[in-house]
Amino acid sequence: VTPSTPDQTRSRVSRRARALRSSQIRDLLDLTRRPGIISLAGGLPDPAGFPSDRLAAAAADVLLTDPSRALQYGPTEGDPALRALVAEMHTVRTGRPTRPDQVLVTTGSQQGLDLLARVLADPGDPVVVEDPGYLGALQAFQAAGLHLVAVPVAETGTGTRDRTGMDLDALDHLLGDADLEPAFVYTVPSFQNPTGTSLAASERDRLARLADHHDVLVIEDTPYADLDFTGSPPPPVAAHTDRVVTLGTVSKTLAPGLRVGWIVGPTWLIAAATRAKQAVDLHTSALGQALAVDLLADTVWFTAHLGQVTARYADRAATLHASLHQHLGEAVECAPARGGMFLWARLPGVDTTALLPRAVDHGTAFVPGPAFAVDANLADRLRLSFATTDGAGLVEAVARLAAALDGVRSEPPAA
Amino acid sequence: VTPSTPDQTRSRVSRRARALRSSQIRDLLDLTRRPGIISLAGGLPDPAGFPSDRLAAAAADVLLTDPSRALQYGPTEGDPALRALVAEMHTVRTGRPTRPDQVLVTTGSQQGLDLLARVLADPGDPVVVEDPGYLGALQAFQAAGLHLVAVPVAETGTGTRDRTGMDLDALDHLLGDADLEPAFVYTVPSFQNPTGTSLAASERDRLARLADHHDVLVIEDTPYADLDFTGSPPPPVAAHTDRVVTLGTVSKTLAPGLRVGWIVGPTWLIAAATRAKQAVDLHTSALGQALAVDLLADTVWFTAHLGQVTARYADRAATLHASLHQHLGEAVECAPARGGMFLWARLPGVDTTALLPRAVDHGTAFVPGPAFAVDANLADRLRLSFATTDGAGLVEAVARLAAALDGVRSEPPAA
Repeated sequence: VTPSTPDQTRSRVSRRARALRSSQIRDLLDLTRRPGIISLAGGLPDPAGFPSDRLAAAAADVLLTDPSRALQYGPTEGDPALRALVAEMHTVRTGRPTRPDQVLVTTGSQQGLDLLARVLADPGDPVVVEDPGYLGALQAFQAAGLHLVAVPVAETGTGTRDRTGMDLDALDHLLGDADLEPAFVYTVPSFQNPTGTSLAASERDRLARLADHHDVLVIEDTPYADLDFTGSPPPPVAAHTDRVVTLGTVSKTLAPGLRVGWIVGPTWLIAAATRAKQAVDLHTSALGQALAVDLLADTVWFTAHLGQVTARYADRAATLHASLHQHLGEAVECAPARGGMFLWARLPGVDTTALLPRAVDHGTAFVPGPAFAVDANLADRLRLSFATTDGAGLVEAVARLAAALDGVRSEPPAA
Repeated sequence: VTPSTPDQTRSRVSRRARALRSSQIRDLLDLTRRPGIISLAGGLPDPAGFPSDRLAAAAADVLLTDPSRALQYGPTEGDPALRALVAEMHTVRTGRPTRPDQVLVTTGSQQGLDLLARVLADPGDPVVVEDPGYLGALQAFQAAGLHLVAVPVAETGTGTRDRTGMDLDALDHLLGDADLEPAFVYTVPSFQNPTGTSLAASERDRLARLADHHDVLVIEDTPYADLDFTGSPPPPVAAHTDRVVTLGTVSKTLAPGLRVGWIVGPTWLIAAATRAKQAVDLHTSALGQALAVDLLADTVWFTAHLGQVTARYADRAATLHASLHQHLGEAVECAPARGGMFLWARLPGVDTTALLPRAVDHGTAFVPGPAFAVDANLADRLRLSFATTDGAGLVEAVARLAAALDGVRSEPPAA
């Protein structure tokens, strides 16, 4: 084995670690951190929405009045007050009574994905994922050695029904294959990353009925569910069946730096995931949990805060959408966003992976569609975040993107 | 499959998750949380040593002046200031120039163990561990599917040399077996958990030479290294060779609830562990990292703080040791502690696992030796923590233990 660095020790990375590639998004983010770039590539919340004053007050309160709660070793399952609050929120949203022992606090919802992958499936086991899908989930499932089986995501409504999100006809067909028996079906039903699409209420009910009929567990990941611009979010899939594990997080509503998320699910699964978490990090930051529950429990404040964040994102989404159509005209296909943090666009005839370095040269960035693909051909798709950049920045980014695109178009086609 | 709970969903826990048993220590801690128990079972730092005022000031400072540093998504590798500081501390302690890209910040050192197990070894690969050893490490390695090969720990100095800690003759013999080729050797060389023993400076040098000779990587876990009562800690094993990965943490010096630790090692390993961590939790709490570096960087304050914590622990260790000999006389064998958080004792002829429920009935608790065993017979050993309980409490706990022991002794032996 040849050492890859000047270290005297030879590299002895395991086979499973060698199979892990670095996240393309992470590598791209490095590229787009050049000074002067207006990057729409990341999935970073707007820092102006971070409730830093409120968090500073909460930190002072817990550290000065109950320091052990924030600083001592705590239960692997999580802070009892946070577990109780999450159970209560889940009860309200699903209409199904949920107990605190159905909740495991995780180090962000990313850890929930890692734990569920290891606890629900063995290496080689098939799991159903959306295509395109959330890259962090695909990474966690691949790191656990799982076999990804792709179901297409309908990008925009077609025909008379507004069907978007996971293609349930395709899912039904897959689950009808008795030889498949997937360990779970993973979905982001609200404002999916990367497509921004959501499953309608009737489709959520249908997904639940498919899960019941085929006796398969659904992992419902809900990071963007609260960022709803319409004001009338449909109930979660978990409202329709018990065969659901729900992942939640404060990363998009309060602050990702706290690394606080949770799993809500059947008690046998919470018990198994808790045993796994013991060996993984003992427990999630006690200080982070204490701050999260302090802010989430203040429902009047939290509702107002969420309203502000959502209104700002809705405004930016509209600006980005209008600007794309204004600058690119018929060269772009893109549906407006109804929530979340992303627009998903198509540039017919353009290879967006080849476009990216040119866009960076012109001072902007996005994530090319193939980064999110399992099997799908997404060569002409791209994901644009409207969350991090203000309106003027978004307009300028689109102007730069249009200039980069002009450069590509004016070149002779390759032989 | 029969459901283990009233949930409607059938349990579909993976084979690897079914192989994970709950930590015996965690289960025991639950038992010993009964009101009125003076528990010496846990490994909890003294809450009086938590620098809560200092942390509250640091939290206000970062949240009000640089909120994104504490609240936004951050690099997987860790806060650049913390990485630089850890590299600097490692350079001073080892005398070997260490760069920030040799540091990965982890969610406690427990996460370091999980990441290293997955990145350095594949399921079935042999790894060398101390027997008895740190339970959290044994759990992480077992969860990763590794094959544990035990090396005995010499509990007290024997003969003319004061040799304690990992038995290096036995290690040398093991590593001489060309068929073994372990992925790594795991050791806690300073105030080991559970035995409290340390490797002397000359033995650390010998361990390093064995690692070089057999070309094997040593994982040196140092949670207790700073809790040194003697005032003259030997250099880490990493001072003697590059074939070392060092794990560090603020859990025993500042506060475990922050969940901030780190790995220092060769860059190929840090790069591989960083890729693994991306899929595991994206990054460690940004707020926790900002607080940790603020306090660690204030070396005058940190040195004074550490002096106070260590002096308190030294005092308590002496009280517990004296009290054991006073109450139990020749019924106990126990060397004094020179650092760390634990006394390791032997009660010749007593089954400490059977003694525990009786001790709980008498209002005290400890961890029986077999909880830490790989292959060793430790039926008459027990681990007692002096960190969490004050002097009067320790004396009372030993009186209760003596009463429980009298009860066992007065019973007729089982047929």
